[in-house]
Amino acid sequence: MSQVSIGQYILNRLKEINIDTIFGVPGDFNMPLLDLIEDDVALTWGNNANELNSAYAADGYARVRGAGAVVTAFGVGELSAINGIAGSYSEMLPVIHIVGTPRTTTQEKGSLMHHSLGNGDFRVFEKMSAMVTVASASLTLANAISEIDRVIQTAVINKRPGYISLPFNLINTMVELPSVLPLIVSPPKSPEQVKNIAIKEILRVIQESQNPVIIVDGCILRHRLTAEANEFVEIAGLPTFSAPMGKGAIDESLPNYRGVYAGAISFEEVSEEIKNADLLIEIGSIKSDFNTGNFTYGLEKIKTISLNSSNTIIFHAEYSGVRMQDVLPLLTAALSENKISLDYKPRVRSAPIDNETVEITHNYLWNKVPEYIAENGIIVSETGTSEFGIFNMESPKGATFIGQILWGSIGYSVGAAVGAAMADRSRKVYLFVGDGSFQLTAQEISVFIRQGLTPVIFLLNNDGYLMEKLIHGPERSYNNFQMWKYSQTLDYFGGNLEVNKTEGKNPSPIGIEAKVSTRQEFENAMEKVSEEPDKIHFLEVIMPAFDSPRELLLLCDLSENR
Amino acid sequence: MSQVSIGQYILNRLKEINIDTIFGVPGDFNMPLLDLIEDDVALTWGNNANELNSAYAADGYARVRGAGAVVTAFGVGELSAINGIAGSYSEMLPVIHIVGTPRTTTQEKGSLMHHSLGNGDFRVFEKMSAMVTVASASLTLANAISEIDRVIQTAVINKRPGYISLPFNLINTMVELPSVLPLIVSPPKSPEQVKNIAIKEILRVIQESQNPVIIVDGCILRHRLTAEANEFVEIAGLPTFSAPMGKGAIDESLPNYRGVYAGAISFEEVSEEIKNADLLIEIGSIKSDFNTGNFTYGLEKIKTISLNSSNTIIFHAEYSGVRMQDVLPLLTAALSENKISLDYKPRVRSAPIDNETVEITHNYLWNKVPEYIAENGIIVSETGTSEFGIFNMESPKGATFIGQILWGSIGYSVGAAVGAAMADRSRKVYLFVGDGSFQLTAQEISVFIRQGLTPVIFLLNNDGYLMEKLIHGPERSYNNFQMWKYSQTLDYFGGNLEVNKTEGKNPSPIGIEAKVSTRQEFENAMEKVSEEPDKIHFLEVIMPAFDSPRELLLLCDLSENR
Repeated sequence: MSQVSIGQYILNRLKEINIDTIFGVPGDFNMPLLDLIEDDVALTWGNNANELNSAYAADGYARVRGAGAVVTAFGVGELSAINGIAGSYSEMLPVIHIVGTPRTTTQEKGSLMHHSLGNGDFRVFEKMSAMVTVASASLTLANAISEIDRVIQTAVINKRPGYISLPFNLINTMVELPSVLPLIVSPPKSPEQVKNIAIKEILRVIQESQNPVIIVDGCILRHRLTAEANEFVEIAGLPTFSAPMGKGAIDESLPNYRGVYAGAISFEEVSEEIKNADLLIEIGSIKSDFNTGNFTYGLEKIKTISLNSSNTIIFHAEYSGVRMQDVLPLLTAALSENKISLDYKPRVRSAPIDNETVEITHNYLWNKVPEYIAENGIIVSETGTSEFGIFNMESPKGATFIGQILWGSIGYSVGAAVGAAMADRSRKVYLFVGDGSFQLTAQEISVFIRQGLTPVIFLLNNDGYLMEKLIHGPERSYNNFQMWKYSQTLDYFGGNLEVNKTEGKNPSPIGIEAKVSTRQEFENAMEKVSEEPDKIHFLEVIMPAFDSPRELLLLCDLSENR
Repeated sequence: MSQVSIGQYILNRLKEINIDTIFGVPGDFNMPLLDLIEDDVALTWGNNANELNSAYAADGYARVRGAGAVVTAFGVGELSAINGIAGSYSEMLPVIHIVGTPRTTTQEKGSLMHHSLGNGDFRVFEKMSAMVTVASASLTLANAISEIDRVIQTAVINKRPGYISLPFNLINTMVELPSVLPLIVSPPKSPEQVKNIAIKEILRVIQESQNPVIIVDGCILRHRLTAEANEFVEIAGLPTFSAPMGKGAIDESLPNYRGVYAGAISFEEVSEEIKNADLLIEIGSIKSDFNTGNFTYGLEKIKTISLNSSNTIIFHAEYSGVRMQDVLPLLTAALSENKISLDYKPRVRSAPIDNETVEITHNYLWNKVPEYIAENGIIVSETGTSEFGIFNMESPKGATFIGQILWGSIGYSVGAAVGAAMADRSRKVYLFVGDGSFQLTAQEISVFIRQGLTPVIFLLNNDGYLMEKLIHGPERSYNNFQMWKYSQTLDYFGGNLEVNKTEGKNPSPIGIEAKVSTRQEFENAMEKVSEEPDKIHFLEVIMPAFDSPRELLLLCDLSENR
């Protein structure tokens, strides 16, 4: 029988689910675990500037690699991270939150320990986390192995975060391992007979329909079924739309890709096509307000098939346990023998660049910026103008889109971009963040630099919380804040400091750091950015204060919180 | 009968408990409440850079004015603030957390609303907050008035945070007010007979003792009984010590003030005096690890009288409900007729400045800095070296000390200093924060500037998380991070921008912004700081990487988490 420390066992299981970077902040109850991470050649420590940012980073990382992990300290650290963890729950990302807690004996005594509420209750934070995770565990010597496995498996299968409370004294405690089997991280197979009936029924319904369409949504990304979904879409040949949360799942160069459908904030022609459909095949749907143009989706149940991760719904009938991961390949195979061929009208696109001004408007930015985005780029967009600007942007080849359309925590994008950049250093990260949101999490810029990452950062400066202003109080003082010298961001956060180079680290080489106010300045800067792909770049993009993507304006008009 | 909106009613009650500033961040469920705040001439909006910082600010504000308030938005905003709220619970500050939540109808329908977990559960965040507050309420039209009163009263009486969930549609809903009585924010009086017996017994025990001493702790500050405690100490004439959390409660110029007692990390002579005492009168005691030299207080129950906010304990007997606020004045009155007069040895003080180096060591800094602190200054010290450097620093006249000795959330001091500075603009704020902690909450510097505040900020740069290094992993990479250009902090966060002046705001005039590495440089800079009291100043103080206050070294040696 082999032996392993409980701390190392957790790390081994995390590596098994494709994790090579663990985010977090050191604290006095977790440091021996950080020793193990630092000494493990297969792992990198994320070294975030604060805990909320580290949770955002783990979430962004999970969107690229399938799972993420974050380590914080009892009480103070874990609660600072908890908004990020709740976001991973809402947006369905398996992030494992490991919290270094006081020694078992200290907890049993109920000592008035620092980082506690001072009332002897050492379980309270775990109970809070249990409310925003799919599985949580308080490790003991006896339950450690089984509980670690249970939390990680449950999180990965359900695409929701998990929580592990790891007492200080257990980190280096050795346990015997009888025989370690690989973690089971796939859901159970769909029941064979029910699945076959459902598939037969779907095929029949498709055959009988006149105007069937497909809508692909975010769960396809979360369950990492983009290959299966693209094959299905390509073979089926039906007009296919993406929901905002599904942006990037479907190759937009497919002839039958028809654009983003988001209820009343879609292009009129898109809404028309959906309205005229007599069959809607939704795949991996998430019906949140911002994903559906404030609940203006209006799909009738009697016309809708939903392929989900845990069931299939055909009109009013639910086929429980019949999972899209099993259904899609079989549907594709069946349809390949019976391919539907349609003529497609030209796809509707955003209004072309309006040359009435030299200012950098949203109309200009989202039309222009795809030209500069490298293949397989990762595009991280903040809640607010960026998120909505992305909706109808032409998707560059192989692009992945990261944003929080459901949870919508402002500031998320900066941390998430750090995580995404660490998840795959071969892919270029493009971060679009507004001046308001940036202020919440700005310190994470220094982590890009320390980790030697080379994103292109666009700080969209429209002088205030624009999305808030569009909803309520456009002239209110509370929707404004202190301006910063944004164009000195890389420099302030340590970009040019010699001291970094003395520590055996390779901080990011600094590229363009500039403020641009006109289209010409923007294009000149972007030319230089393109010439230096191995550097980190930061552009402060000055935009007209009340200019907004069409989609955001429409959504705010529909808001019930005006 | 008069009418008032529910939102305005909350604001009126907050003003009644001495609140003139409300901290927070706008969000789409709280903006109509912010309209009311902005339009109320008696209120100022805190306008924080993020929600965690806003909770820290409300906590710092409450330490100066007695209560604080913070407004955030449902889900994302409130969870970002929750570590700060838990800190206020742990450290005993009545901070009222008001959360703008979705419309009642939206909540009832269980819509898949943004900022929700996407599972239709709109109560989950309220349940989480209930675990770190003393009272929480979800307002409805029917319960609003009584619940607002209950939460605020309970919070103020118990010195713990309260939580109010305020649905968007109720903010401007008018309600009838029969006759509004003032809030009852005092605890019930002590039971007369029990109190008299306890006082008689305390006086007898004092008379019979040979070496009685007094130890004053943090609850005196929380219950705002410093006047009563000082009178008692002065009249009783007994040797009096302060616990670290009680620092600042007792006038250190009193002849019988004997220094800080913190168990094994006290000065030896202090420990000796406590050991030799045959009677210990503890007032407002909080027995946490960092407040007691890691539980090395060692006070024997048979020698100890504890005067608390909810009871009095004489050796092994508890007098329930006999409160220190009632007991102290009566004890003072009784003792004034029978004053004890003692000869005091000279008080032990920190080792004087060691002139062996020109570097800015902790020995130098904490000896030197009191010379520059204005009367009635507010000294905010971060968890880590600053907090421990403060222990035995000479207290300037009228100084208030703010720090989180129990909760110990790093980064707290920056937000707390904003709150303290807004709580009383006639008092100068001095912030001592390490480079590591500063990175967590640095953006709040821009709030000082926007609000026109004029603190003196000392960024103690010792190149890493020193307190962590002293506990574990001194040479580990995880205890280091990217250096920033700290000495450009005011400039980066908008200190010199003309744009601020156009908004009808008066941002802080910028004073000294410098990096100092030698004592001479420090003193030259501080001379200039003293000459410009109406400006904001920022000094990056370079300190030797492993230099530490004596008290922190001793505490880390006692840590069980090494």
